[in-house]
Amino acid sequence: MVRADEGVGFLLRYENVAWYEDGAVQILDRRIYPIRVEYVTCTRHEEVAQAIADMVTQSGGPFLAAAMGMALAAWEVREKPEADILSHLEKAAYTLSHARPTTSAKMERVTAQAMDAARQALAEGRSGASLVEALRENALRQINENYIRYTAVGKLLADKIPQNGTIMTQCFAETVVGTLLRECRDRGNAVKVICPETRPYFQGARLTASVARDMGFDVTVVTDNMPAYVMEKKHVDLFTSAADVITLDGHIVNKVGTFQIALAARYWGIPYFVTGSPNPSHPDMSSVVIEERDPALAMDALGTRTTLEGVKGYYPAFDVTPPKLCDGVVTEKGIFSPFDLKRYFES
Amino acid sequence: MVRADEGVGFLLRYENVAWYEDGAVQILDRRIYPIRVEYVTCTRHEEVAQAIADMVTQSGGPFLAAAMGMALAAWEVREKPEADILSHLEKAAYTLSHARPTTSAKMERVTAQAMDAARQALAEGRSGASLVEALRENALRQINENYIRYTAVGKLLADKIPQNGTIMTQCFAETVVGTLLRECRDRGNAVKVICPETRPYFQGARLTASVARDMGFDVTVVTDNMPAYVMEKKHVDLFTSAADVITLDGHIVNKVGTFQIALAARYWGIPYFVTGSPNPSHPDMSSVVIEERDPALAMDALGTRTTLEGVKGYYPAFDVTPPKLCDGVVTEKGIFSPFDLKRYFES
Repeated sequence: MVRADEGVGFLLRYENVAWYEDGAVQILDRRIYPIRVEYVTCTRHEEVAQAIADMVTQSGGPFLAAAMGMALAAWEVREKPEADILSHLEKAAYTLSHARPTTSAKMERVTAQAMDAARQALAEGRSGASLVEALRENALRQINENYIRYTAVGKLLADKIPQNGTIMTQCFAETVVGTLLRECRDRGNAVKVICPETRPYFQGARLTASVARDMGFDVTVVTDNMPAYVMEKKHVDLFTSAADVITLDGHIVNKVGTFQIALAARYWGIPYFVTGSPNPSHPDMSSVVIEERDPALAMDALGTRTTLEGVKGYYPAFDVTPPKLCDGVVTEKGIFSPFDLKRYFES
Repeated sequence: MVRADEGVGFLLRYENVAWYEDGAVQILDRRIYPIRVEYVTCTRHEEVAQAIADMVTQSGGPFLAAAMGMALAAWEVREKPEADILSHLEKAAYTLSHARPTTSAKMERVTAQAMDAARQALAEGRSGASLVEALRENALRQINENYIRYTAVGKLLADKIPQNGTIMTQCFAETVVGTLLRECRDRGNAVKVICPETRPYFQGARLTASVARDMGFDVTVVTDNMPAYVMEKKHVDLFTSAADVITLDGHIVNKVGTFQIALAARYWGIPYFVTGSPNPSHPDMSSVVIEERDPALAMDALGTRTTLEGVKGYYPAFDVTPPKLCDGVVTEKGIFSPFDLKRYFES
């Protein structure tokens, strides 16, 4: 199988995102990279779900981890009869796709596709190691398809960046960071990248900035209180983020912080482009659960508590940017107005 | 001398802000409190200036530190003739007031007042230990006057907070945090306080939240990417900050982050009140220098580097909020429109 992750930097190579081999899924621990390069080894699919819940991997990582987790689940029951295998895989699909609430609809599509692949493989008489291999192939096919889709997204977004311009990102937009920067490099556009650090996990500082640096770009990290000021001071041309959910009516659910950067971008007249595609499971925000994580994490800096005893924390993992603050939803099919997303499904 | 810092919490007690005694100024190290309670001991006034530059103390702290530093400078030359004393004090005044650029105009007023006190004491025939004592008394008088002024500010601001309402702060507004919360407590208004952590030094998490907690209030810390979302989610009634500079034309220079919280407050229709008074040295922004600090600090979390080698940082210490985003400048003389600050000097 041809791999579509060529030239996108260490962190985005499939084997560093999540990789099934010989009865285990290895996941690069993004909670600590690049301070340390460590992998979490999961020998049960439940451990993969736990790793997703614990944010060992995030952004696009959980999708590959879940697909690889399905191969691991098949390995767990490789010597069982077909009926047992299917019921085990069904359970694993649920566990893996529900590790975190906000993205569960998207994750269900990943695990449903794995289930289809499993049924087809069984129908073809594949079992044991061959069934496991079918699910691993499915995971690779899924991530490859994703890369091919995001290569198109990256090209469309690259069209919006002036030559040697400056972009601001938020959190870690995974695949599109790789495909956008790969496209810019291919075009000889030496874009400068400004990454807000993205507390409390520092994904912007640790992940996005690392990928950009790996790929040879000029990259600057600022803390999360700086975007509105820095945007004007450093002449940012474009703000872009991915999304965990884009509702059909154009609301963007993404890493907390996106909303206030979008507000600042609008204030300065800087366009905000979100990458991703609208999610048909979410006509509007009423069906989206905003995950709230352990409040203690909002009072923690890489393991040191920042507050006095008795102070509380609050940690919503995502926020919601309304469609009026977004200038375009960049999809593999073109750039759509957030107010006109039904057209995505018609094109 | 009656002290005006009664009942405002540990961190705001004068002896924890900056204190001259027996040839040394002790300054609580706010870079690490409350993780550790440590004092920096300065035995030369240059060390006080360095401590200010290094942000051992910040917000209102440097003003008391500089005034106490003038007592230390007098101690350094306690056995010299009067002419030498005055020239030494003049030099110390310059060094102390120029430790950081953005607030130097304000600091010059503090050291000029100390110079006046020194000249008056010398004219009264005080010298040696008595001159040192005169400068220490001046420092206490200055901080007391500040407290009395901010007690009035606190009362006016407290009028704007609904009973048991919720306020959001930014960074550490020093004296007014103490006087506002003391006033709320006296009125039986159990306000809830939400503090953005304020990277990279975590002043919101470490200082403001500690004072509020010390004083018995319900206080919640969020990371700096959360204010815009949390403001609506947690029903914030009012956003308030202090200012390092308020220009005569109503621009607010304060800890970076203030601007983007003010933008979010305006989006949600939540009032933003700044405390302080307009600075006659700054008719507009053209005379204000925005301090830029060591870029490495934007890539540091309590001593751990968050980025890969080769990634850059950028650290503007302050940002600028335009008058149109501010609902009122709360001074000891009343609340003024940011568009009408000349009236402050007429009232």
